[in-house]
Amino acid sequence: MTEIIERLPVELPKAYRLLNHGPTVLVGSAHGERRNVMAAAWSMPLDFSPPKVAVVIDRNTLTRELVEASGEFSLNVPARAIARETLAVGSVSGRDVDKFSDESGEGNRVEAFDGTHIRAPLIGGCLAWLECRVIPEPHNQDRYDLFLGEVVAAWADPRAFRDGHWQFAPGVSRSIHYIAGGNFFETGEAFEVKT
Amino acid sequence: MTEIIERLPVELPKAYRLLNHGPTVLVGSAHGERRNVMAAAWSMPLDFSPPKVAVVIDRNTLTRELVEASGEFSLNVPARAIARETLAVGSVSGRDVDKFSDESGEGNRVEAFDGTHIRAPLIGGCLAWLECRVIPEPHNQDRYDLFLGEVVAAWADPRAFRDGHWQFAPGVSRSIHYIAGGNFFETGEAFEVKT
Repeated sequence: MTEIIERLPVELPKAYRLLNHGPTVLVGSAHGERRNVMAAAWSMPLDFSPPKVAVVIDRNTLTRELVEASGEFSLNVPARAIARETLAVGSVSGRDVDKFSDESGEGNRVEAFDGTHIRAPLIGGCLAWLECRVIPEPHNQDRYDLFLGEVVAAWADPRAFRDGHWQFAPGVSRSIHYIAGGNFFETGEAFEVKT
Repeated sequence: MTEIIERLPVELPKAYRLLNHGPTVLVGSAHGERRNVMAAAWSMPLDFSPPKVAVVIDRNTLTRELVEASGEFSLNVPARAIARETLAVGSVSGRDVDKFSDESGEGNRVEAFDGTHIRAPLIGGCLAWLECRVIPEPHNQDRYDLFLGEVVAAWADPRAFRDGHWQFAPGVSRSIHYIAGGNFFETGEAFEVKT
């Protein structure tokens, strides 16, 4: 299946808004001929402009190896429509299965497409994409599995985020927030408050 | 007004679940006779057990001064019922107003109560509370405004989180996720997927 992936650029000073509400993300990585994707509930913005992010990448993962070797990763904001795939790619190792192929027959494959600034794959079925370069901080990486990155390009599906704002069109699958044990929350009602 | 705050302890290895879905938090701090509270959208779990957290605390805030001086902070998960106060305490400095008093007459005061392991205040109207001790990492603090902490005690309102799981009772105000400009998402529908 080939999916048409609709995306528009997000201006970098607004890129933090793609993560500000705390969605679970997919981390894309590549080095040489190898590429991978894993789920991460532990990520957050770290700065506005230039935009920076922080993400925890366990030392035992293939993603860790590829991110350390390449100095790049993508953060992808999955839609509820691929919650099952999000859980799946967070539950197996890229050392054991190619998460982009359908060899398992279980239908948990995800689509990859190319970014513009990094070689790490961006993931289809997502609402937003951040292309990131690692800000090397070996002490954080070694001691806390904590990676910092600068966002060098950002994209969003205009049905979910446009003109710098989340604006979910009716019927558009929302972002998700992982809890534990296969349990998620969907991103809920938007509301505005004034002080 | 004195509020009865219902809370039960959360076992430490489950404390990450209070933040795993990416809610906006309130950061409580105290040093000497001074105390403060501010909002922070940029926090995340950093480890399971012992539980650790990461949070961004801007260098220009009173919170920063108090956290650096005391080596402690609380993370508090506000309910939608206090979204207005959450925005308010994130919009003014504790150097200008006492956010725990009602001198402004604007009704944006928050209630504070005592934790068990730290002197930083816990905040009323929240769903969960994490008492944290700073893990000193001066380079992260100075360069990225990034603070790491170990969670030394955790609590939750059993109407929202009990037995290690978020279980919002009907009618209970949910956690919130800040976007920008006074706009939030409420934590939405819970769902489970299986791989």
